[in-house]
Amino acid sequence: MASTLKLILFVLLSFHIFLLVSSHQHHPLDSLTPSEFTLVRTIVNKTYPSSKLNITFQYIGLDEPDKPIILSWLSNPKSKPPPRRAFVIARLDKQSHEIIVDLSTRVIVSDKVYHGHGYPLLTLDEQFAASELPQTYEPFIESIKKRGLNLSEVVCSTFTVGWFGELKSKRVLKLLCFYIDGTVNLYARPVEGITLVVDLDEMKIVEYNDRLIVPVPKAEGTEYRESTQKPPFGPRLNGAALVQPDGPGWANWKFHLGFDVRAGPIISLASIYDLEKQKYRQVLYRGFISELFVPYMDPTEEWYYKTFFDSGEFGFGQSAVSLKPLADCPANAVFLDAYYASSNGTPVKISNAFCIFENHAGNIMWRHTETSIPGEVIREVRPDVSLMVRMVATVGNYDYIIDWEFKPRILEMKGVIYTHTNQIKENVHGTLLAENTIGVYHDHFLTYYLDLDVDGEDNSFVKNNLETIKVTNHSSPRKSYWTVVSEIAKTESDAQIRFGLKPAELVVVNPNKKTKVGNNVGYRLIPGSATHPLLSYNDYPQIRGAFTNNDVWVTPYNKSEKWAGGLYVDQSQGDDTLAVWSLRNRKIENKDIVLWYTTGFHHVPCQEDFPVMPTLSGGFELRPTNFFDSNPVLKTRPPNLVHWPNCTNKP
Amino acid sequence: MASTLKLILFVLLSFHIFLLVSSHQHHPLDSLTPSEFTLVRTIVNKTYPSSKLNITFQYIGLDEPDKPIILSWLSNPKSKPPPRRAFVIARLDKQSHEIIVDLSTRVIVSDKVYHGHGYPLLTLDEQFAASELPQTYEPFIESIKKRGLNLSEVVCSTFTVGWFGELKSKRVLKLLCFYIDGTVNLYARPVEGITLVVDLDEMKIVEYNDRLIVPVPKAEGTEYRESTQKPPFGPRLNGAALVQPDGPGWANWKFHLGFDVRAGPIISLASIYDLEKQKYRQVLYRGFISELFVPYMDPTEEWYYKTFFDSGEFGFGQSAVSLKPLADCPANAVFLDAYYASSNGTPVKISNAFCIFENHAGNIMWRHTETSIPGEVIREVRPDVSLMVRMVATVGNYDYIIDWEFKPRILEMKGVIYTHTNQIKENVHGTLLAENTIGVYHDHFLTYYLDLDVDGEDNSFVKNNLETIKVTNHSSPRKSYWTVVSEIAKTESDAQIRFGLKPAELVVVNPNKKTKVGNNVGYRLIPGSATHPLLSYNDYPQIRGAFTNNDVWVTPYNKSEKWAGGLYVDQSQGDDTLAVWSLRNRKIENKDIVLWYTTGFHHVPCQEDFPVMPTLSGGFELRPTNFFDSNPVLKTRPPNLVHWPNCTNKP
Repeated sequence: MASTLKLILFVLLSFHIFLLVSSHQHHPLDSLTPSEFTLVRTIVNKTYPSSKLNITFQYIGLDEPDKPIILSWLSNPKSKPPPRRAFVIARLDKQSHEIIVDLSTRVIVSDKVYHGHGYPLLTLDEQFAASELPQTYEPFIESIKKRGLNLSEVVCSTFTVGWFGELKSKRVLKLLCFYIDGTVNLYARPVEGITLVVDLDEMKIVEYNDRLIVPVPKAEGTEYRESTQKPPFGPRLNGAALVQPDGPGWANWKFHLGFDVRAGPIISLASIYDLEKQKYRQVLYRGFISELFVPYMDPTEEWYYKTFFDSGEFGFGQSAVSLKPLADCPANAVFLDAYYASSNGTPVKISNAFCIFENHAGNIMWRHTETSIPGEVIREVRPDVSLMVRMVATVGNYDYIIDWEFKPRILEMKGVIYTHTNQIKENVHGTLLAENTIGVYHDHFLTYYLDLDVDGEDNSFVKNNLETIKVTNHSSPRKSYWTVVSEIAKTESDAQIRFGLKPAELVVVNPNKKTKVGNNVGYRLIPGSATHPLLSYNDYPQIRGAFTNNDVWVTPYNKSEKWAGGLYVDQSQGDDTLAVWSLRNRKIENKDIVLWYTTGFHHVPCQEDFPVMPTLSGGFELRPTNFFDSNPVLKTRPPNLVHWPNCTNKP
Repeated sequence: MASTLKLILFVLLSFHIFLLVSSHQHHPLDSLTPSEFTLVRTIVNKTYPSSKLNITFQYIGLDEPDKPIILSWLSNPKSKPPPRRAFVIARLDKQSHEIIVDLSTRVIVSDKVYHGHGYPLLTLDEQFAASELPQTYEPFIESIKKRGLNLSEVVCSTFTVGWFGELKSKRVLKLLCFYIDGTVNLYARPVEGITLVVDLDEMKIVEYNDRLIVPVPKAEGTEYRESTQKPPFGPRLNGAALVQPDGPGWANWKFHLGFDVRAGPIISLASIYDLEKQKYRQVLYRGFISELFVPYMDPTEEWYYKTFFDSGEFGFGQSAVSLKPLADCPANAVFLDAYYASSNGTPVKISNAFCIFENHAGNIMWRHTETSIPGEVIREVRPDVSLMVRMVATVGNYDYIIDWEFKPRILEMKGVIYTHTNQIKENVHGTLLAENTIGVYHDHFLTYYLDLDVDGEDNSFVKNNLETIKVTNHSSPRKSYWTVVSEIAKTESDAQIRFGLKPAELVVVNPNKKTKVGNNVGYRLIPGSATHPLLSYNDYPQIRGAFTNNDVWVTPYNKSEKWAGGLYVDQSQGDDTLAVWSLRNRKIENKDIVLWYTTGFHHVPCQEDFPVMPTLSGGFELRPTNFFDSNPVLKTRPPNLVHWPNCTNKP
């Protein structure tokens, strides 16, 4: 890790990135290191010896210091950093324990049993153990035999069960099994008709039903590996590499990148350099994907429960995959590893979990050609460059590519979704993709947590409504025009917005800071296309996913309100969601506020999505709005010319 | 041009682009060549000798052959191409003549006088002549003297006057003058309070009014040229170049690129290669920006009329500017020149009007990591590459960047807008940007003409409505789900869509062609964010811009229906718009249909837009939807590895 660290600092030069893991002094927001995970395990096992008790670690992450402590440390970074603490959710005797461990004093600071609804993150270890159970479960072996299939070619996969009004629950999941004979496309050949329920605390099959036999779809056409494709081939992509004779460029952002087993990438303390003021100014205290809700739209027995919460149930960070150099990220990318804790608390490494690269996508930052000045033709153009931070998480049959793009002034977030044989069954609630293969309708809702601190903590949320004014007094040859009517959101309900009802610009302003000419400094949200939930509000999945009922919510900052679907999402009953917190209708004017934004896709599968779906992408921008006194990139100097370089293809 | 041609064919290898101008046989859709412009002029001047008559050429462009003729020629491209014809709009004796010239027989085929409302495209020559008039107009000289300004530092600019219910009209424009003392930012220092009206057919000032004196805003802070900026500087952008040791890559699109003085870039005959069927399949017969409507939102005397139609009034192609290598387009771009005819019919060259480049933006075409297959980890990733066609038009203080992006399966259009000191006045209908400087609220609506021919000419437009179904009979633990209810648009009114009312996928299908499993082949529109007009429907500018009343319209193909705002847009009265044509409510099912799509921006200026605005971008995608039997890029072979090359910075 230390050598990677050096590489980063060297290559990225003027991108000030605080790192995930440092061999030197910790930044207080650094993710837990492998040795810290080990230490947490040792300390917890002292109280709950694993030799005697069947304790599992469902979540271990940084218990981040309170915001005032971080801000006070930031104002004097040479002072002693706040103590390092870990937050642990452990499962013991069928109970969820919330344990806070102080790493410097090496003691458990608090240990509480959670008695509410829902269960913690599922670990990969327990999902793997559960998926192995059918191989030795006699009724299942019998069912496979009855279908004339070969048991050694059957692989089972785990599915969370959701909540549909049950009063009592156990910590269970469902298994669906697939036939991998002739395919590596796991979801392509489902063995339908069998219901398998596993109790995770007992780690045994507690329900079994072989209801009906359905033909297994063919393996044909499900292959996606290059090595096994048959002609005709598509043309080969030619390789391309970015050459920067003067080294990498610049950016005016400073931020901290963290990793969490649940959230994946966490961007903190993003601030932007103001050339005129000659200092960094705060923009985003903390931003991450808070939840990812994926309800399927098939109400039948074997499918109704599929209403996944990919972050809170499966862990977006836990699902991160190693990125492939020169394919997932271009040649000029640098890579960072990430760590999380396994069920038994030992650290697990994800190599190349992040890549960071400078993006020269052929865009233009600003330009102007002036032909009206007599005797002169003026042409000024600045090419655009941005810094990308990328992570890919594979959850079930989805590959999610999460990009944070730091443009010279703008912060852009993008989620790109790829499906691996979009879950398949023979049923009418979807599109016929291939023989016996239907892609079932579903949605993806990505809810972002954006704790904006625009030039300081106390901010307000302003709706600049665009309103038509009718000219009725013949004061103008016009009959109408539009103007901006600003509305400051006083309480949470004022800031609950569904796009499409009326046009407005949504700005987070600092009411205590003004530009020279007197506008409040701000950053505004430029949303992507609006995607609203189509489930009934009173339907169980939508009660659990009620944080998607609005596109935008604003809450006062509250350290405990991080997860839009609640801390315990698996089988949750929707009593700990953003929608419930916001019922208090707290004051949000001139306060430390958090913006929650949901973007998403309705997915009507089409044949092009088979067997692996191409890009489906969406995102949004945070754009300065009277934050600067004038165009902040005006004084960007154009690049030195790079002609086609003389290069050889030798590494 | 011939050498450029060779370069293109060499560099772009497998991109089959028919070119603007070819030294060999014409493609029937090729734009007029310089010698053809000269020929048109000669032929027209034979009938209307310029020595005797004051004839001006307002428009000369290809009179494209009828669609059946093109399609029949395409089926046998070795046959004799259809005759080359030019369409001319000339101004003579205060009348607009529509003249069709046959270039092979060298005769005027038809010559009609237009008697309807509105006037043709303004030429650059007449705009320049008009803007010079005040310099010798005594009352104006007096007004400038009265303000204590130096006449030689005053530059006037031309503005179309719109239509506000007048029953009679002359061909006039208005002039606004600016003070360029100490600035090259033309619009930064308006000399307000003076109204100047020029009759273009007489080429003289016909109305003059010096109503009030307003202080001219300061020059300070309006500079944008790098050469004159003062420290502190932003960091220098480091140059970057794309290196492709194996040469440029591939794409599976074939298309024709044309240039028109009014429309700018025209993409024709775009078809995509189907690997399985081993042939090209039609997608887009013709696509271009049909109109660009920019209404300002200030109802006062000096501003109310500013409701521009940038394409029909000023000519998007005529406004194209030379692209700057390594700034407007990356190092791997190739450039193409374009030609149009001046007022007197002689050809004018725009060097480097287009650039075409392969775009490696660090995106991923598709990927999957499979971890659930015991004993194997499978990771397949394909980086994305696309072909960009770019043109920049500077209309007044706007720089519009128009990109057509050909992705491996998807056709994406993007319009990017930059303002040069967003039109400025001291007034409340905008944002205070700097001292005495207000950016006035306005909109940009880009209306695209998309004559889709999906796998053949006869297509239907299908709305796949996403509808919530309530489960009321307890047949499922669910209470709701959504499904797709398809609706085929029978007539034009069925296809008039405003986004945001209900979710739907919009697909142009070929009802006569099906995939193997029986879906109709199609391409769907993935719109950008919706921007609806906020002017009253009965307001004059909105009557003229009524084609923006819906986001989507579908019409049966009609060669004469090309310009959404009408053929004669200057001072038009809205009687020849898409909205009027569509009142006929023609049949559109299983017919040759045209999709009209409007995307846009409401612009509430902010200080970051001063003195030159950074990127504001929007666009949309055309994406195959059951067009292919399965993922068409599955068999794309990954690129050969390119390591960081050993390069020198010598050209």
